Amino acid sequence: MKRVLVTGASGFVGRHAVEALRMRGFEVHGVGRGGDPAHHPTDLLNPAERRALMDAVRPSHCLHLAWDAEPGRYWTSEANLDWVAASLDLARSFVACGGRRLVVAGTCAEYEWGTPRLHETATPCRPATLYGVAKDGTRRIVEAYARTVGLSVAWGRLFFLYGPGERPGRLVADATCALLAGTPFATSPGHQIRDFLHVADAAGALAALLDSPVAGAVNIGSGKAVPVRTLLDGIALLTGRPDLIAYGARPLGLGEPAAIEADIHRLSDEVGFAPRFDLDAGLADTVAWWRQQTDG
Amino acid sequence: MKRVLVTGASGFVGRHAVEALRMRGFEVHGVGRGGDPAHHPTDLLNPAERRALMDAVRPSHCLHLAWDAEPGRYWTSEANLDWVAASLDLARSFVACGGRRLVVAGTCAEYEWGTPRLHETATPCRPATLYGVAKDGTRRIVEAYARTVGLSVAWGRLFFLYGPGERPGRLVADATCALLAGTPFATSPGHQIRDFLHVADAAGALAALLDSPVAGAVNIGSGKAVPVRTLLDGIALLTGRPDLIAYGARPLGLGEPAAIEADIHRLSDEVGFAPRFDLDAGLADTVAWWRQQTDG
Repeated sequence: MKRVLVTGASGFVGRHAVEALRMRGFEVHGVGRGGDPAHHPTDLLNPAERRALMDAVRPSHCLHLAWDAEPGRYWTSEANLDWVAASLDLARSFVACGGRRLVVAGTCAEYEWGTPRLHETATPCRPATLYGVAKDGTRRIVEAYARTVGLSVAWGRLFFLYGPGERPGRLVADATCALLAGTPFATSPGHQIRDFLHVADAAGALAALLDSPVAGAVNIGSGKAVPVRTLLDGIALLTGRPDLIAYGARPLGLGEPAAIEADIHRLSDEVGFAPRFDLDAGLADTVAWWRQQTDG
Repeated sequence: MKRVLVTGASGFVGRHAVEALRMRGFEVHGVGRGGDPAHHPTDLLNPAERRALMDAVRPSHCLHLAWDAEPGRYWTSEANLDWVAASLDLARSFVACGGRRLVVAGTCAEYEWGTPRLHETATPCRPATLYGVAKDGTRRIVEAYARTVGLSVAWGRLFFLYGPGERPGRLVADATCALLAGTPFATSPGHQIRDFLHVADAAGALAALLDSPVAGAVNIGSGKAVPVRTLLDGIALLTGRPDLIAYGARPLGLGEPAAIEADIHRLSDEVGFAPRFDLDAGLADTVAWWRQQTDG
């Protein structure tokens, strides 16, 4: 029997991951905030609560998504250090309770940005942010720990996600809400290239990765990076308000490289995962969802 | 006023570091196990105790030496993960209580072994052991955290230490005790090259580093690596029992490289530290100390 503990189950990726894992026959135990009665309300930053949960569930698999992801804040937040400690301890109690297969949500921010196409082993990991360093450091330590105890670990490096349920303060959510509300959306010139993936596909990829024996880092992206302008033009087309996007009204953020592109050969060839949504279909799905929210 | 908190103050390096820091005019607050009344008995793996101590002492400087160092066990011990978490939290509470300058004990095990002379920035950090990865990961995260809060951090990478007070299970302690007791000492062929430094010099180097503005990793070694055979022959000469050393009676440990040599230009040129003991003087001091222990 495959029993999985999903941390961050009520989050943006987590809600979709729970569904994807059920579809694959997993018995899913979620941990989530916000009082969702479907999930355990465990505070994962509390060691006693964390260990009691693991001991009660005794999962064979664990998908660890929980981390501080407060937009604008998480790049430099001290909470990154809390999540390093919690993640290391989670891995240990998982093993102590009989766990065998762990997948953790990593990030493209672990890489040295500025290199053309980010590859799991060929691109150096030289993260520029505390968030990236904390994720990268956790991976290094969890993988070394896993080798000493025979735990199977993979690290799903998420690139840029969008889709239903995205929280305010993130690009696609803010742009879509602004255009649907008829308010201007001030943004950068939009020439930077990013790899965008619909959140349901990201969650599906993580579920497929967990359900595979693939070890180590695996990029989770579309493999088809586009200029941010292409993404926003798509939203403009779907909402009928291209006039509202003010390109260049804001500078590109400090430290934002010209391109962040994922090499997804490991994901497609080794894990065998293919996304359901291309960018047009993904944006259509997303704008339709936001339209429902704002109409409702 | 320079007030320093020294963790691991009753340990092998710590006892010497406390002296070296007093000589430099620091008001020293030690944390140590083993009931030494000169030190705070704080359990550093207990978050509440750790933070209460930091708040009570409110040090301007911190020398963090504490870690699991149980011979034979520490390379793969799960306690390495506890010390990662404790070290990250220690850095945060140090900053929260007004701390400005932190030095942490790193290790030559952070480097990729097998490269000729280990240099702080030129040699890649690809540790082969959980201990090495845990130290390396902690450094990466602490340095990134320090950049976000303006904390000054240096990382003193210790190579191979010996000297008075060394615990059993380590090379020089075991060899010296065996030869003084007249029992055979079974060892490897002894051709592997290592950088040995007297513990009082290592402690002096850490104190000098803490008292300097030098940031980042700094190797703490003699810069004069020798074959292990040279070291053991020195002990044999001082004890008069070369007949007792059985070279080749044990194989060289798995994963032990042919050479681990420190480049010490940062330590000598930037920190301005020079050791007091060369190998002959250091071994003479050490054997004399062990003779006193066994006679007494």
